[in-house]
Amino acid sequence: MMNSDKSLFITSLEAKWKQGLFVCVGLDITFAKLPPHLRKLPSPQEAVYQFNKSIIDATHDLVCAYKPNAAYYEAMGAEGWQVLQDTIHYIKDAYPDIPVILDAKRADIGETNEAYAQAAFDYLGADAITVHPYFGREALEPFLSRQDKGVIVMGANSNPGAKEFQDLQINESGLPLYQHIAKEVARRWNTHNNCAVTVGATQPHKIAEIRRVVDDMPLLILGVGTQGGEVESTVKAAQDSRGWGMIINSSRAVIYASQKEDFAQAARNTVIDLNQAISLARKS
Amino acid sequence: MMNSDKSLFITSLEAKWKQGLFVCVGLDITFAKLPPHLRKLPSPQEAVYQFNKSIIDATHDLVCAYKPNAAYYEAMGAEGWQVLQDTIHYIKDAYPDIPVILDAKRADIGETNEAYAQAAFDYLGADAITVHPYFGREALEPFLSRQDKGVIVMGANSNPGAKEFQDLQINESGLPLYQHIAKEVARRWNTHNNCAVTVGATQPHKIAEIRRVVDDMPLLILGVGTQGGEVESTVKAAQDSRGWGMIINSSRAVIYASQKEDFAQAARNTVIDLNQAISLARKS
Repeated sequence: MMNSDKSLFITSLEAKWKQGLFVCVGLDITFAKLPPHLRKLPSPQEAVYQFNKSIIDATHDLVCAYKPNAAYYEAMGAEGWQVLQDTIHYIKDAYPDIPVILDAKRADIGETNEAYAQAAFDYLGADAITVHPYFGREALEPFLSRQDKGVIVMGANSNPGAKEFQDLQINESGLPLYQHIAKEVARRWNTHNNCAVTVGATQPHKIAEIRRVVDDMPLLILGVGTQGGEVESTVKAAQDSRGWGMIINSSRAVIYASQKEDFAQAARNTVIDLNQAISLARKS
Repeated sequence: MMNSDKSLFITSLEAKWKQGLFVCVGLDITFAKLPPHLRKLPSPQEAVYQFNKSIIDATHDLVCAYKPNAAYYEAMGAEGWQVLQDTIHYIKDAYPDIPVILDAKRADIGETNEAYAQAAFDYLGADAITVHPYFGREALEPFLSRQDKGVIVMGANSNPGAKEFQDLQINESGLPLYQHIAKEVARRWNTHNNCAVTVGATQPHKIAEIRRVVDDMPLLILGVGTQGGEVESTVKAAQDSRGWGMIINSSRAVIYASQKEDFAQAARNTVIDLNQAISLARKS
């Protein structure tokens, strides 16, 4: 599947999709939510690292990507930043074929984005980053110009207040803002074939509308539970012309599937169930 | 000026404005741009900390705020995150009356923003944070509900590509997106009187339009040079009904005013010139 027209991030994803793997595990770690036996380790940082390592080892053959969210590590200070780097480096060392998405939702002006790109890609070692679109393509060029990396732009979020701005109707295009943005990203930003957009899983009609305007560009799908029904409507709306193009993220349902010592096995079982639901939905 | 209806961030700013101080110094530090004698220190972190400390000591009586941009510290890894904390703690210890704005342009969904708020306000000790508006007020509640802190929302940026989305016409309001957002922030988000919006200095007509829709809510003005003319049109457009309401940021023009050992004195002189230009503009 190596195609020099595509970013390494996209070709890595395609290799996983070819194996029928579409689940991305979100590593959104809060120390207080870790199993009690891990919270007894000498430091919170050690507990988080061991937790992440166990989740990754238990799910690596079942996923298309991992997605640590920077916020939870930043809340732990400089040591948290170190755990984030250690976690990403662990994935890249042990399972180099699995892409890592840094969910950091960054975006500044161009020169400052150079520093953010350096932090995400060179220091932390992530393969892709999530970004806010507000400053436009020109500002995000330091991310977009990294042909080997992925740039995932905020599209149609499904948090209760998301409609405040993203659903506003744009005069110039006759589209709601989230579709206007997704279309621009697909048509004008994606010259290196390294872009994607986010969609919320609880709104299949919006996923379908976004799929229509972005052609086969990948979608990062957020907020998927483990209910078969939700997965079915999401997959039907999200898949591209090849039946691919989906990075289906699940965070808490996977990583906090059990509060006991069997947490990693429980996480594995949850991903197996999710994979099964996705597989059924793709065939139906 | 203490007013229990206002956030500590806003009352701290008002105390500075009352003294005629409107300049915010942006601590956007790149190691390679530091004076050569500092780059010889044992570690980049030590060099950045000593640089920041010197700039702060040389300008503390002339400014209304400091604004470190997180990107430049993140690019230095975990140690950079530590220098960012050390810098903010230094300001709060030595000059507790000067508010610190963490320019991080964060924004995620609600639960994740709790972690970002913890990182910015509790771990780093900042008094305010810059945020992206895209997910709406509901998502940003963990920032907005911190009555003692400031929340500065992206408004009208002046980077070359900003017009791609921010200038789009919104059907519902008949306003361009940046005005629609600024108006919502002033009318609906600002219940704790702790909000502000950003504007780019090179576009006085947009500053004037934003001032019209936000009443006396503060503006963080980005990209100010030291030319008297630009300052004059910016101040005339930006000042509120009291002649206040402006956080006028200057970064590189101040901190890199000299590449020699006199860099801190040169920074001071640049702020003095800027203060003079602002003072003239307010009187004219």
